[in-house]
Amino acid sequence: MKHTDIVHVLQQEPSLHEITVRGWVRSFRSNRFIALNDGSTINNIQCVVDFENFEEETLKNITTGAAIEVSGLLVESQGQGQKVEIQVSKVEVLGTADPEEVKLTILSPKRHSLEKLREQAHLRVRTNTFGAVMRVRSKLSFAVHEYFQKNGFYYMHTPIITGSDAEGAGEMFKVSALDPKNPPLDDHGNVNYKEDFFEKETNLTVSGQLEAETYAMGLGKVYTFGPTFRAENSNTSRHLAEFWMIEPEVAFNNLADNMDLAEDFIKYVIKYALDNCQDDLEFLENRLLEEDKVKPAAERQEMKLREKLHFVIDNNFKRVSYTEAIDILKNSKPNKKKKFNYIIEEWGADLQSEHERFLVEKHFKCPVILFDYPATIKAFYMRLNEDEKTVRAMDVLFPGIGEIVGGSQREERYDVLKKKMEAMDISAEELYWYLDLRKFGTCTHSGFGLGFERLVLFVTGMGNIRDVIPYPRTPGNAEF
Amino acid sequence: MKHTDIVHVLQQEPSLHEITVRGWVRSFRSNRFIALNDGSTINNIQCVVDFENFEEETLKNITTGAAIEVSGLLVESQGQGQKVEIQVSKVEVLGTADPEEVKLTILSPKRHSLEKLREQAHLRVRTNTFGAVMRVRSKLSFAVHEYFQKNGFYYMHTPIITGSDAEGAGEMFKVSALDPKNPPLDDHGNVNYKEDFFEKETNLTVSGQLEAETYAMGLGKVYTFGPTFRAENSNTSRHLAEFWMIEPEVAFNNLADNMDLAEDFIKYVIKYALDNCQDDLEFLENRLLEEDKVKPAAERQEMKLREKLHFVIDNNFKRVSYTEAIDILKNSKPNKKKKFNYIIEEWGADLQSEHERFLVEKHFKCPVILFDYPATIKAFYMRLNEDEKTVRAMDVLFPGIGEIVGGSQREERYDVLKKKMEAMDISAEELYWYLDLRKFGTCTHSGFGLGFERLVLFVTGMGNIRDVIPYPRTPGNAEF
Repeated sequence: MKHTDIVHVLQQEPSLHEITVRGWVRSFRSNRFIALNDGSTINNIQCVVDFENFEEETLKNITTGAAIEVSGLLVESQGQGQKVEIQVSKVEVLGTADPEEVKLTILSPKRHSLEKLREQAHLRVRTNTFGAVMRVRSKLSFAVHEYFQKNGFYYMHTPIITGSDAEGAGEMFKVSALDPKNPPLDDHGNVNYKEDFFEKETNLTVSGQLEAETYAMGLGKVYTFGPTFRAENSNTSRHLAEFWMIEPEVAFNNLADNMDLAEDFIKYVIKYALDNCQDDLEFLENRLLEEDKVKPAAERQEMKLREKLHFVIDNNFKRVSYTEAIDILKNSKPNKKKKFNYIIEEWGADLQSEHERFLVEKHFKCPVILFDYPATIKAFYMRLNEDEKTVRAMDVLFPGIGEIVGGSQREERYDVLKKKMEAMDISAEELYWYLDLRKFGTCTHSGFGLGFERLVLFVTGMGNIRDVIPYPRTPGNAEF
Repeated sequence: MKHTDIVHVLQQEPSLHEITVRGWVRSFRSNRFIALNDGSTINNIQCVVDFENFEEETLKNITTGAAIEVSGLLVESQGQGQKVEIQVSKVEVLGTADPEEVKLTILSPKRHSLEKLREQAHLRVRTNTFGAVMRVRSKLSFAVHEYFQKNGFYYMHTPIITGSDAEGAGEMFKVSALDPKNPPLDDHGNVNYKEDFFEKETNLTVSGQLEAETYAMGLGKVYTFGPTFRAENSNTSRHLAEFWMIEPEVAFNNLADNMDLAEDFIKYVIKYALDNCQDDLEFLENRLLEEDKVKPAAERQEMKLREKLHFVIDNNFKRVSYTEAIDILKNSKPNKKKKFNYIIEEWGADLQSEHERFLVEKHFKCPVILFDYPATIKAFYMRLNEDEKTVRAMDVLFPGIGEIVGGSQREERYDVLKKKMEAMDISAEELYWYLDLRKFGTCTHSGFGLGFERLVLFVTGMGNIRDVIPYPRTPGNAEF
């Protein structure tokens, strides 16, 4: 008999039709009440068995974690917390779960630390918290595609393996099919990549931007959504060695258009989550309130999770130039009292996470877009302003997260770009194709990158980026 | 002034409002008719200039490939082939394209070979053919997400870098941050991966299936859509070293459900392309008809492109067991006349591409789902049938493409799986987490993998897989 997803069953009215559901037992109380979950929603369906009608052997196997199939009438629930429940007429145990073995895992029905859950990442999606996080992640992913497709963007898959290491966005992983123990060497004693699979040295991409620019110059509006990599030894709660990035790139957009796009896009996807993940967000919100109870008052959240999400949607992001931001920071209390680890002394300083958080969380108390950064601290491809000191860069900063978006208007002038590449020691020969874009119908264009996991962190309220991706890759960890 | 996408302009009625468009010049005839394209559609907007009203300098720079901004009234077109055109009141050249330099590239307005276009992959998206292919690719991608999300599946990002090489789906690329020239060695003289970034040997994934199974056991219905890799020296028109794969995995689905899902899914995305890519598909269809003109009659297509796509949507995929297929092949003309390179002699033989194509293109003349293959030629995780000789595997075979989907019902029985892993020398220690799924509420489940580029090949009618992905990675090629 065909089964129905529990998310749909819970929306149905009581009826005299028999229905069948399948799922995993979350609990079995008093030999009578099975809480069954199939992952389609965070909510369980209550299945009520009259134990006198069933074999003892069957009932014995209905334990936490077991997979079962249940048939019965959907009736009005007598208990609290649910509108309907199933009056079980038939139950079949599809796969048992030995209670002694379950006890040794995070499936055992008690509170487990997030660290413990990470060690059993293949099972953690069966918990309420990770089920909720991963459903929200999925909905957010779809919102990303829907937003861009509705707005006339074309999705493009930029290459993961890349022969170019020119962008310098970060340390790269090497990709090779050579024997790592005895690689072939050339006449100079260096590894001879001519004998490797791609006949050249190759790495994992750190960004699809440069390739996305080539497509924006043909299709007009494009976006990427794919994995990117950093071989950096950052063991923090905000960094992954492998993460998913979204990179729109738009011909004819200037920096102001780019800011508009980033703000509109972020608001759209957050609203999508609010509209489509109500139950999961409610659960995650309550989870944070529980956490707050054991925290000192000063560390508790100022807003509940969904309040915070509404706040982002309902308010304009504050747009502030780097120069203004430096003034604010120089005159700020923590700077004067030397509470910052890096004291801001003059224009040109690179902003640290502590400064970004001060601006967002203490000073403006809302998302902030910083723009027009000093050219010296930004990448070669960013459009030089007329002052010849600053570039049309922008970072979107979020409370609790810091930088969630980094982007810029791109340098569209061939000569200026070429000069800058030379100054920054970036090979024009290797990036000839990138320079070509400035030779054949060049135009103003802009784009940005959004780290998807940081968005998921923000929307779910989770504290560690390892808890918003199924199998996190970090220094020393590539399990599963 | 804000500009409008040409795709929308072409749908408008003539009006007295001034509009502005931006794009790249495809041609400029008689100092009067500019064909302008912005990538939003394959169709150009005709912009009519009265050359007496414009500077000669400006007109001189309106050459193929140049980026321009045009303003004017949208009027009824006097010419053929378009409903509306722009009566230009203002034109600005944003970026020139030196005709002498353009001549040296594929932007020059003449016929270029696909090989030549591949060499200039950063420019080829500006051609009609590649613009069309990449727009169709984007729409198909969205259709994939829409189908699964509508049907209650959750999208999951499976890891790209993997510590497990157990699946054996193909040769893997190694990923490392060690110095390739002087890697640290252990006491046995082997590379000491404990000192590598992940403190173990890591590779690029060949499939997200095993991880997807872990999530199906929690969320019920999941799918992946991400890059996968093969370090195989296959220099064919159907193989890439880096390609995108779609892998749904569904708890409680048996093999028949799995076939239903594959068929329904494929029909949905092809229908989506037909509904949403009419102009691009029309162009690609005509492109094939042109190609056919110079081919001998026997090699021409039997159906036009869109006819072929409709045929797939409108007909049931023929479901045939491996055993039946062997009988058909054994008794086939090419087998008896020894025209096959591999003669089918007995049950148990692995099917080659020539056999698959015979079944699909000559015998059944429609998409075919082969199922219940001999266990010996299939992967360890496939569900063993009661005959203990065959497994619940399935391949979907398409005309002109061959295998487009490979999937199976998974072995859900702990003991059977463990025994099979031992027999196939797959480490139970390394895949303890995969075995765990069979210990804690195991259940019937199924899934498949669909190579996205093969789908794009089929829908666009292109002949070489390198022409349906922006920057193909193949042996000896990781350019751009």
